[in-house]
Amino acid sequence: MLQGFTASTRPEQGPPRLAALREVMAQEGLAGFLVPRADAHQGEYVAPRDERLSWLTGFTGSAGFCIALMDRAGVFIDGRYRLQVRAQTDTDVFTPVPWPETKPADWLRSSLNEGIIGFDPWLHTAEEIARLEDGLAGSGIALRRVENLIDRIWADQPPPPQGKVSVHPVELAGETSAAKRERLAQVLREAGQGAAVITLPDSLCWLLNIRGQDVARNPVVHGFAILHDDARLSLFIDEGKLDADVRAHLGDVDIFPAGTFGQALQALPGPVRVDRATAPLWVADQLSSDAVWGADPCILPKARKNAAELEGSRAAHLHDGVAMAEFLCWLDAQPEGLTEIDVVKALEGFRTRSNLLRDISFETIAGAGPNGAIVHYRVTEGTNRPLRDNELLLVDSGGQYADGTTDITRTIARGTPGQEEKAAFTRVLQGMIAISRARFPKGLAGRDIDALARYSLWLVGQDYDHGTGHGVGAFLSVHEGPQRISRLSDVPLEPGMILSNEPGYYREGAFGIRIENLVVVQDAPALPGGDARAMLDFETLTLCPIDTRLVVPDMLSLGERAWLNAYHARVAKALAPHLGDAARDWLHRVTAPI
Amino acid sequence: MLQGFTASTRPEQGPPRLAALREVMAQEGLAGFLVPRADAHQGEYVAPRDERLSWLTGFTGSAGFCIALMDRAGVFIDGRYRLQVRAQTDTDVFTPVPWPETKPADWLRSSLNEGIIGFDPWLHTAEEIARLEDGLAGSGIALRRVENLIDRIWADQPPPPQGKVSVHPVELAGETSAAKRERLAQVLREAGQGAAVITLPDSLCWLLNIRGQDVARNPVVHGFAILHDDARLSLFIDEGKLDADVRAHLGDVDIFPAGTFGQALQALPGPVRVDRATAPLWVADQLSSDAVWGADPCILPKARKNAAELEGSRAAHLHDGVAMAEFLCWLDAQPEGLTEIDVVKALEGFRTRSNLLRDISFETIAGAGPNGAIVHYRVTEGTNRPLRDNELLLVDSGGQYADGTTDITRTIARGTPGQEEKAAFTRVLQGMIAISRARFPKGLAGRDIDALARYSLWLVGQDYDHGTGHGVGAFLSVHEGPQRISRLSDVPLEPGMILSNEPGYYREGAFGIRIENLVVVQDAPALPGGDARAMLDFETLTLCPIDTRLVVPDMLSLGERAWLNAYHARVAKALAPHLGDAARDWLHRVTAPI
Repeated sequence: MLQGFTASTRPEQGPPRLAALREVMAQEGLAGFLVPRADAHQGEYVAPRDERLSWLTGFTGSAGFCIALMDRAGVFIDGRYRLQVRAQTDTDVFTPVPWPETKPADWLRSSLNEGIIGFDPWLHTAEEIARLEDGLAGSGIALRRVENLIDRIWADQPPPPQGKVSVHPVELAGETSAAKRERLAQVLREAGQGAAVITLPDSLCWLLNIRGQDVARNPVVHGFAILHDDARLSLFIDEGKLDADVRAHLGDVDIFPAGTFGQALQALPGPVRVDRATAPLWVADQLSSDAVWGADPCILPKARKNAAELEGSRAAHLHDGVAMAEFLCWLDAQPEGLTEIDVVKALEGFRTRSNLLRDISFETIAGAGPNGAIVHYRVTEGTNRPLRDNELLLVDSGGQYADGTTDITRTIARGTPGQEEKAAFTRVLQGMIAISRARFPKGLAGRDIDALARYSLWLVGQDYDHGTGHGVGAFLSVHEGPQRISRLSDVPLEPGMILSNEPGYYREGAFGIRIENLVVVQDAPALPGGDARAMLDFETLTLCPIDTRLVVPDMLSLGERAWLNAYHARVAKALAPHLGDAARDWLHRVTAPI
Repeated sequence: MLQGFTASTRPEQGPPRLAALREVMAQEGLAGFLVPRADAHQGEYVAPRDERLSWLTGFTGSAGFCIALMDRAGVFIDGRYRLQVRAQTDTDVFTPVPWPETKPADWLRSSLNEGIIGFDPWLHTAEEIARLEDGLAGSGIALRRVENLIDRIWADQPPPPQGKVSVHPVELAGETSAAKRERLAQVLREAGQGAAVITLPDSLCWLLNIRGQDVARNPVVHGFAILHDDARLSLFIDEGKLDADVRAHLGDVDIFPAGTFGQALQALPGPVRVDRATAPLWVADQLSSDAVWGADPCILPKARKNAAELEGSRAAHLHDGVAMAEFLCWLDAQPEGLTEIDVVKALEGFRTRSNLLRDISFETIAGAGPNGAIVHYRVTEGTNRPLRDNELLLVDSGGQYADGTTDITRTIARGTPGQEEKAAFTRVLQGMIAISRARFPKGLAGRDIDALARYSLWLVGQDYDHGTGHGVGAFLSVHEGPQRISRLSDVPLEPGMILSNEPGYYREGAFGIRIENLVVVQDAPALPGGDARAMLDFETLTLCPIDTRLVVPDMLSLGERAWLNAYHARVAKALAPHLGDAARDWLHRVTAPI
């Protein structure tokens, strides 16, 4: 089993650890210390060694931070985690603080007249510290770089991850690492920059055509790199992770022990490009030459998947669609009494059967009835709910395959669904179809099309409080920037970018609905009668039936119905040859035209 | 007649005028001189005295500028005017320059090694000159403020406009000028600003509850004002425009001759708020205290219409709808042979009949067949086209009434329209209905909903190259900021803002389609089953049938069809009591449900 269901922390562990932290704060003359969830690579998932926030506070969410002062400790969490933080932390000593509504600087000003706040420059970006310093300007509160105080008091802190590195074959990557490095070096030369510092693990993996095992769910390698403007690359990594095959693959890459990264930065001549939003402040601190703030040069090229990566993604979606179809067929045959944990285990089993699964791409969300309305729900033994007739089941899951990363949500009827659930499901489906069918002029960003996914809900006064879509990697992170379908995203959509398309609707205490396919942006073919203007559209990657028991056909327009029937015909044709008899029969039944 | 049809300039007038300009440039030691279309008030329409650009070049478009050098003269025009500029100017001496694709600074750098470019600081904003100076940094080219050289050589230049000012009654304005001034003074006090300079004519009219006749089509007053932080107001204006009634209405406003504006600015203490984007650079030049850049404080309050202004707008749309219905009924009865000019004259006649029309709100666009595809078409004797059977007629027009400003476009079938025209019309109508029906969360801007108006066209590879909607004033400018429905607009929509809703489709050389209603943003009523979230929707103001002969009913969804039928029922009920027998019969026929 990949996914576990036991709580990893207990609230009562927090107070003594906080007391120990305050002791070392006092020794260092600090009035406070920052404990972020982030590691040095600013990833969404972190290694056990970097679980400092949950070790201290008990809070295990994927975003947030603690500011520990002598007389109080604020745990800053966003709207998703309001309930979870109260269940996981001892709120006598830890105070949940709504964030980003409350700015850390404002909270500090109202908590403290003066004093020094320590922070570990490895765990914060330059942008983050600059913003905090701006907010504290004119107060008696100052920030100071210090060694990590949690690491000093955490007696049984796990060691840094030692995941073996593997080669990501060029057949799947579609471009050699040498070609990628030459392409980016050209960008640096044109910008007059001598080098770029790479600190994001997925950038490193993409650039070197390698994958790793340093973090659960994300096949990434922890390490740092300097790309020089002549395409040479210096890699700083724990060399124990590299076997002979990988060393041979890395060829002319200069490999150095991780501990020498600082010296190398200090010796770097010329303007050095550093990503202000993602690199640790520590990196800029080391540079003797001026840092030039600029985005990690891998981010955009990585987001624009090439033909081989797209071919791989299509193959991964075929494996995943087969697993999902077998799972959904099985689920439909189960009587009442099944629990959410049974669902998670079964789905993982179907995904594993192909022998192609490397990992799940995130902890499966399986929410029955009212649990479906909790957007980031993760079932534990404590919350596990049986599936009941006439309740909806929301399952959001994905797989990491060597050829691609998947992410899919289906909402499934049990028994006889209510009219309100069916109407809401149909509206969510209309939004999801609107994005699936969309064509739009080149140059538009996710913000410009986000409304299309929400319009059917808006018309009846409903909406959902998350973005419509996030970027997805190629056997890399399931959440990948910079593109999004969101009112917050100004990044123009470009051919090759993979995005999720996942409108939803959540009624607290009652039910939750989300329907999610992955799509890839492509140049739209010219249409007879169409304008001579460059347009984009989406190819849908995900292959899995949508539960038509929840569709009210009369609510669909002709075009929407045609899309659904054509999608189901495509799904049936693609999956049928790979299914067992029972699942094949089931598939033909559930993909029949409506 | 308000609208004329003869060309106001001839291409052959340009060369001798350019030669005369170059003579005075040489006398002043200038290598170049800027001739903008704008006047000191940056309005879309200018007084005859300010028609410097068309006097010099022959080009009469509503946006653009000329940079005259000794050996060349560039006329910078945007995509709307590519054809018109070639027809109106002598291109042997004037070179059309595509703008904003070509930046003026880049054109200057490529045309000139060094030299002084003169400009009139009354006619350019601080933002405009700063951008140009940035673009010229490091070159041998510098800018210099000079007296207007066109005014020096234009022998028969008309005098400044002397339009009489009238009182805009508080029953229509909904708030006294004193209350408005107090409200804005409060804003200034809170910002620590001693005064704000008002240079936009519609801001001045809104703030003082006055209207004027200084510019055709816009009932505005040319003048300048200083609003002090204690709510006192100093008005700088040609006093001949003010009669006793207006003076009584202005009450405690301090009135000064227009020529003393500069001295008053020089004597102003404290930080003074100046709108960098709209005020002449000359204003900031006069201030001894530092100018604080900030938006004209009238702009947002003016955009949020109050209950009385909205009541007035509804009444204006009733007058205008009656005129439009009588016109469309008449038009349907006319045989072949009618021309575009006949259409413009007839429509103006129907609008005038009510005795309520103060002016048309812009030159009527009446484009038959292929002329409908020219978005900013204005018929002249030279282009006048007869209406032919089986061709579409596009009519975009509006009226200025004391109670409100209207702007409406209808596309009308003649004979038997073709299938392609009908399909395109239906798609445009779907976009227009999508905006009309839209509900959306508070906080969204025009950019966030623009796609809804285009989606039906995008699906078949079509689009239109203009915004979906512009703001509209209350018996003021028909184009009013800051709100727009456009991918360029980040201004959140707020209750009371009036916008046009005008998707279109244009096939060059064949036909043009646009359907335009005005709408007003309002708080959306809560719906049963809807979320507890603040949402906005639109009330449609325009009352006029949409030509159902051009609708393909099967292309419409149930919701779209229901909207159209409900709109037509509302139009019939509102207009019928005010129409003659023939038009009433016609109205009931054309608004029958489909």
